[in-house]
Amino acid sequence: MYFDITPNNEFIKTEKVPGPTKEEIRALVISKVKLTDEDVVVDVGCGTGGLTLEFAKRAKKIYSIDMNPDAIKTTRANLEKFGLQNKVELIEDEGLKALDHIEDFTKLMIGGSGGNLDNIIETGYLKLPIGGRIVITSIVLETATDSVHMLKELGAEPEVVNISVSKGTLLDRGVMMKALNPITIVSARKI
Amino acid sequence: MYFDITPNNEFIKTEKVPGPTKEEIRALVISKVKLTDEDVVVDVGCGTGGLTLEFAKRAKKIYSIDMNPDAIKTTRANLEKFGLQNKVELIEDEGLKALDHIEDFTKLMIGGSGGNLDNIIETGYLKLPIGGRIVITSIVLETATDSVHMLKELGAEPEVVNISVSKGTLLDRGVMMKALNPITIVSARKI
Amino acid sequence: MYFDITPNNEFIKTEKVPGPTKEEIRALVISKVKLTDEDVVVDVGCGTGGLTLEFAKRAKKIYSIDMNPDAIKTTRANLEKFGLQNKVELIEDEGLKALDHIEDFTKLMIGGSGGNLDNIIETGYLKLPIGGRIVITSIVLETATDSVHMLKELGAEPEVVNISVSKGTLLDRGVMMKALNPITIVSARKI
Amino acid sequence: MYFDITPNNEFIKTEKVPGPTKEEIRALVISKVKLTDEDVVVDVGCGTGGLTLEFAKRAKKIYSIDMNPDAIKTTRANLEKFGLQNKVELIEDEGLKALDHIEDFTKLMIGGSGGNLDNIIETGYLKLPIGGRIVITSIVLETATDSVHMLKELGAEPEVVNISVSKGTLLDRGVMMKALNPITIVSARKI
Repeated sequence: MYFDITPNNEFIKTEKVPGPTKEEIRALVISKVKLTDEDVVVDVGCGTGGLTLEFAKRAKKIYSIDMNPDAIKTTRANLEKFGLQNKVELIEDEGLKALDHIEDFTKLMIGGSGGNLDNIIETGYLKLPIGGRIVITSIVLETATDSVHMLKELGAEPEVVNISVSKGTLLDRGVMMKALNPITIVSARKI
Repeated sequence: MYFDITPNNEFIKTEKVPGPTKEEIRALVISKVKLTDEDVVVDVGCGTGGLTLEFAKRAKKIYSIDMNPDAIKTTRANLEKFGLQNKVELIEDEGLKALDHIEDFTKLMIGGSGGNLDNIIETGYLKLPIGGRIVITSIVLETATDSVHMLKELGAEPEVVNISVSKGTLLDRGVMMKALNPITIVSARKI
Repeated sequence: MYFDITPNNEFIKTEKVPGPTKEEIRALVISKVKLTDEDVVVDVGCGTGGLTLEFAKRAKKIYSIDMNPDAIKTTRANLEKFGLQNKVELIEDEGLKALDHIEDFTKLMIGGSGGNLDNIIETGYLKLPIGGRIVITSIVLETATDSVHMLKELGAEPEVVNISVSKGTLLDRGVMMKALNPITIVSARKI
Repeated sequence: MYFDITPNNEFIKTEKVPGPTKEEIRALVISKVKLTDEDVVVDVGCGTGGLTLEFAKRAKKIYSIDMNPDAIKTTRANLEKFGLQNKVELIEDEGLKALDHIEDFTKLMIGGSGGNLDNIIETGYLKLPIGGRIVITSIVLETATDSVHMLKELGAEPEVVNISVSKGTLLDRGVMMKALNPITIVSARKI
């Protein structure tokens, strides 16, 4: 059993796929998902597989979806590097379509929506059991506001958190701080 | 087994003691400590017990130190509220003095130093086993720079991360973002 | 002639009116408005009068609008305190209605919209001369995204800047940083 | 007379010289310097000339110092581009040495110190008239804390402000926010 967040530089990356989600953000997402080892997680827009990997360490079963074949390939490579591929079903498809075929998940993570955010949130939220959780990460202002509005419409009480991380580079003359791009995390409990 | 971060509003608080450390910061500290269930953690300056509680959920044994009797009392109350008091030894003393008497810990968290930061870092770092970790949280600029300098002097390679979190309040007219105070987390592996 | 930004603590305040806009934000707003001494400025939602005062120091003529009589009263008090009341016409009305009766302004500042943001932006933008500027400040996520969308629809090329300021308090043990709430500034040139 | 902040992309740049200081930061620095048209400004570490240019628009006389000949060349090119070279004396030298030979300045800006920060602050502060101002910008944590300590030792009451700016890129799917590196501005009035 382990709780560590895998460092950014341990991931296999490819230029055609964004990510991995920075390690500090992964730590926060994990905490907003309120992950347990009983969870079945759906990860929509898995990209490089940063979050999928964290889910795979901790949860029972993960469905990771991306319409970009390179994302699926990279996520698979990262899962294999850490020996976690058996817990994860990789699905190369649009998020909404894939979600239609998955039952009995307890947590839903949306990191990318292919322009179909509202429908993915609605379909996903309705499929979640009471007490399940939905988490949306957003680097685009509209994703945050659209998620909040959709979740409110569905009767949920979304939480919104914006995180700005800067990391120090140790120079001779001192610690120079370099900013990562800010990210907004919207999350809600199914009620 | 659980991984959840306890919400801020579930803590017993008292006006005389700062904290608890905000839940997003606790999630990040946990990830920088790289906590495992084999860990023996020393928590210097435990305050309200926010971090002590998170450590107690996940690690094997915790020593929590604070020179303020109200902090010890509040930390105890919070541990008892969540049934985690058995894993934690509470020590009402100065950090440096208490640290002198503790052996065989694997992780050291410094959230408050009572003006004795350099000595606490030095004593603590030297007592850590190779591969152990030290984490210092700082709301004061000098704590961050002093920690970095001391750790570099001790031969460590500190990491510095500054976090600004803002949280949304859902109003009729939209999501109003309110800032939490920024915090700097310095961490290092014992080498 | 002066360029100074009036310190926050020199304003007359009242509990019933938000503001003044923090001095760092006022400095940035001034720079986004690209204010000159030839400008005629409309300030919609003037609140305590923080921005109105800065405009009054530098521009030729200002129309300041607020539907809250206490805001008008407070803005007037602040202008009189600094001897700048002659340049400013105070209008107690809804922003959109007031804007309908004002001609020949060159800069439009929207700090509050009373729920009528889209119409105020549209009416104001269309009245601006080519090369005029519109600036919207936002503490609510939706105000920023709505402003961007409306301005794009009107053919403008909005700029979006988010600012997080934290200010140091000098304690014996060091400089403690306290965060101000983040603010988003949307601005565009009339084209 | 003009108050505009020159956009980042209008500067002549060279790879060997950092800068220009981002436009939002220049707007804030100007406000912390409390610049007037009577001011004589010393700009230590002028780099690309971003701040020198802003000072030159507004103040009476500027001495701009940099030990890097490429910085002096670039600053000159930028001043000439905007027709402001006559107000500025460019000095290719170490900050401290150059400062020794300049009398009767009213504002001191330190953007780079070549490792001699304490001495530059001390020499500069002592030469300032009562009511003059000193401003230090810092991308390194230690520059901020060292400046505060030196200014306190000299009897000043420094103000510390940390600024994180992120700017929006307008994509089809929304406004993506990209962070600039945070900067700390320390400033004080000579008392």
